[in-house]
Amino acid sequence: MTMTAPLKAVNSSVLALDAMGGDHAPAIVIDGAVLARERYPEIKYIFVGDEAIIAPMIAAHPSLKDCSEVRHTTEIISPDMKPSLALRQGRKSSMRLAINAVAEGHASSVVSAGNTGALMAMAKFVLRTLPGIDRPAIASVIPTQSGETVMLDLGANIECDAENLVQFALMGAIFCRTVLGRSEPSIGLLNIGTEELKGHDEIRIAASILRERPIPGRLFGFIEGNDITAGTVDVVVTDGFSGNIALKSIEGTSHLFSHFLRQAFASSLLAKLGYLLSRGALNRLKKRVDPRRYNGAMFLGLQGVCVKSHGGTDAEGFANAIGVAHDLVARGFKERIAEELAVQYGLGGSTPEPEGEPL
Amino acid sequence: MTMTAPLKAVNSSVLALDAMGGDHAPAIVIDGAVLARERYPEIKYIFVGDEAIIAPMIAAHPSLKDCSEVRHTTEIISPDMKPSLALRQGRKSSMRLAINAVAEGHASSVVSAGNTGALMAMAKFVLRTLPGIDRPAIASVIPTQSGETVMLDLGANIECDAENLVQFALMGAIFCRTVLGRSEPSIGLLNIGTEELKGHDEIRIAASILRERPIPGRLFGFIEGNDITAGTVDVVVTDGFSGNIALKSIEGTSHLFSHFLRQAFASSLLAKLGYLLSRGALNRLKKRVDPRRYNGAMFLGLQGVCVKSHGGTDAEGFANAIGVAHDLVARGFKERIAEELAVQYGLGGSTPEPEGEPL
Repeated sequence: MTMTAPLKAVNSSVLALDAMGGDHAPAIVIDGAVLARERYPEIKYIFVGDEAIIAPMIAAHPSLKDCSEVRHTTEIISPDMKPSLALRQGRKSSMRLAINAVAEGHASSVVSAGNTGALMAMAKFVLRTLPGIDRPAIASVIPTQSGETVMLDLGANIECDAENLVQFALMGAIFCRTVLGRSEPSIGLLNIGTEELKGHDEIRIAASILRERPIPGRLFGFIEGNDITAGTVDVVVTDGFSGNIALKSIEGTSHLFSHFLRQAFASSLLAKLGYLLSRGALNRLKKRVDPRRYNGAMFLGLQGVCVKSHGGTDAEGFANAIGVAHDLVARGFKERIAEELAVQYGLGGSTPEPEGEPL
Repeated sequence: MTMTAPLKAVNSSVLALDAMGGDHAPAIVIDGAVLARERYPEIKYIFVGDEAIIAPMIAAHPSLKDCSEVRHTTEIISPDMKPSLALRQGRKSSMRLAINAVAEGHASSVVSAGNTGALMAMAKFVLRTLPGIDRPAIASVIPTQSGETVMLDLGANIECDAENLVQFALMGAIFCRTVLGRSEPSIGLLNIGTEELKGHDEIRIAASILRERPIPGRLFGFIEGNDITAGTVDVVVTDGFSGNIALKSIEGTSHLFSHFLRQAFASSLLAKLGYLLSRGALNRLKKRVDPRRYNGAMFLGLQGVCVKSHGGTDAEGFANAIGVAHDLVARGFKERIAEELAVQYGLGGSTPEPEGEPL
């Protein structure tokens, strides 16, 4: 394994991995990378972290030979470090160097299971936002009764104005088109009623803007919390406060049901027997709602692909987060959203700097 | 059955029922009243609605004989009527006359499955808020891994300041003490992180106020969406926007799981057999998360007990909403919260008018 020669620049199949981020790093990162490579044999990795620890772990996996580079650092961002502090003091951290690899063109995307706030702050600072995007958003795919829905923002922006929400809608719709393959995605604005007069001003203004502009999808209108998992729309648009609360309420209820179900099947001999007989079907259900399957929150709106894995995930979950980053790059999400923003705002899609652009 | 003589004034066992509110009214109201009376034999009813329709329905139930009065009106509040319009034009509606019965001292509480916004607007106008409460809140009990939690506000107040949230916390804690019988309820403020620096200003200020004041419980601190159903705290305090989204996200995920579970058990012969064997346990689980069991949202902070039933519920659900109203009255919630407010703000607990009181 050659660990010294850097992989050649601007290689779309190279992912930078923060090997030290997450509760069970670096093991889950290395093992997740092995799993992901079974699914995407073309991908290569830049592992960023303590070489003394990770190089032997990588060496133990023949499939990582010849496709892995290690960038050494002993510095890490702690899970509770404030984003501002991480920005100032984390310049040599594994997280920061992994992001830098994208900015330098050595990798097409970065995946980290570390501190979310620090990752967003650093990614924004290093990769910058796309021209036409005021604030990046955190997005994730959510299982629904009819398939899958993408929801954003999930916590990057506590307060959002109407234009932020409109930009989230555009990014979500382009994600649906490019990654989920839906040509005319429906967009719903999360509210507490479906009537036009309900909700905060910014939601109502966002709806009226989306109604007037040519958008890459169609505006469904307002939706309520239960519509998220009902699959009423393809894209759920909300501010980061409500979005985070909705996502975590969904996760919590999923846990509640699993808990109740376990109790039910343990409650009698007959129920235990019933469980044994239906185990195959129940295991398929378990897989269907497995949080690891939906691991990998996307930071959309940056000039580079950045994916946040859940901090407590395992190798399977981390492999899925790598898959999310891979799909965003392979389907050209970033390029398509830049084109769309150029159409929407009359911007040069490839202009690197947002300053001075007419909005 | 004597329908003409009004029941004697200020009878704590009398409930006023809006017989015409809800998708399946008046049938579910009458049938729900019958069910509730089996549970609480001491209760009496004032049914408000079209006598020509409801009197024969009531007469068909021997158990409603001698404990029911009908107040006639043909006017109803439609489900989509704006609250302001309902206030102006609905003075003779079944909803309004049912609320009036409480204000007049003829009933101790009112239950309606009609238009939520109209019910809140009318209840606020007719019953008035308690001295020390700036805004009433909608509260509901939610099933959790460890039992039950009360959450408020669920949609009455889209934006809340810190003092509103503090008042919600007090009301939720007193509800826990009086109705759920928990002597030292823990209070959580719904946020998007548990760190002190996270969230909107008003949540952080509310936390610091609750930390300083002597409160009827203890402040747990910030909680996240998944903590609601985990049962981390006894009282979940939030603004009406986030609360509504959290509640409906929980309801939606509950539907998603039921849907997936049905699919899983129908997916193979073995799974079907397994279902048959474990049906008893699964039916108990179904009952445990039955939304009808948790039907009955409480409008807390009013000088009278007002409970909103889900519009689409059936007789069983409506009976549970009656049970919620019964419990609030029987446990003296209103009196206890008035006492608590007197302690907190130095108010006369029984003063009927909030004007001019020192806050």
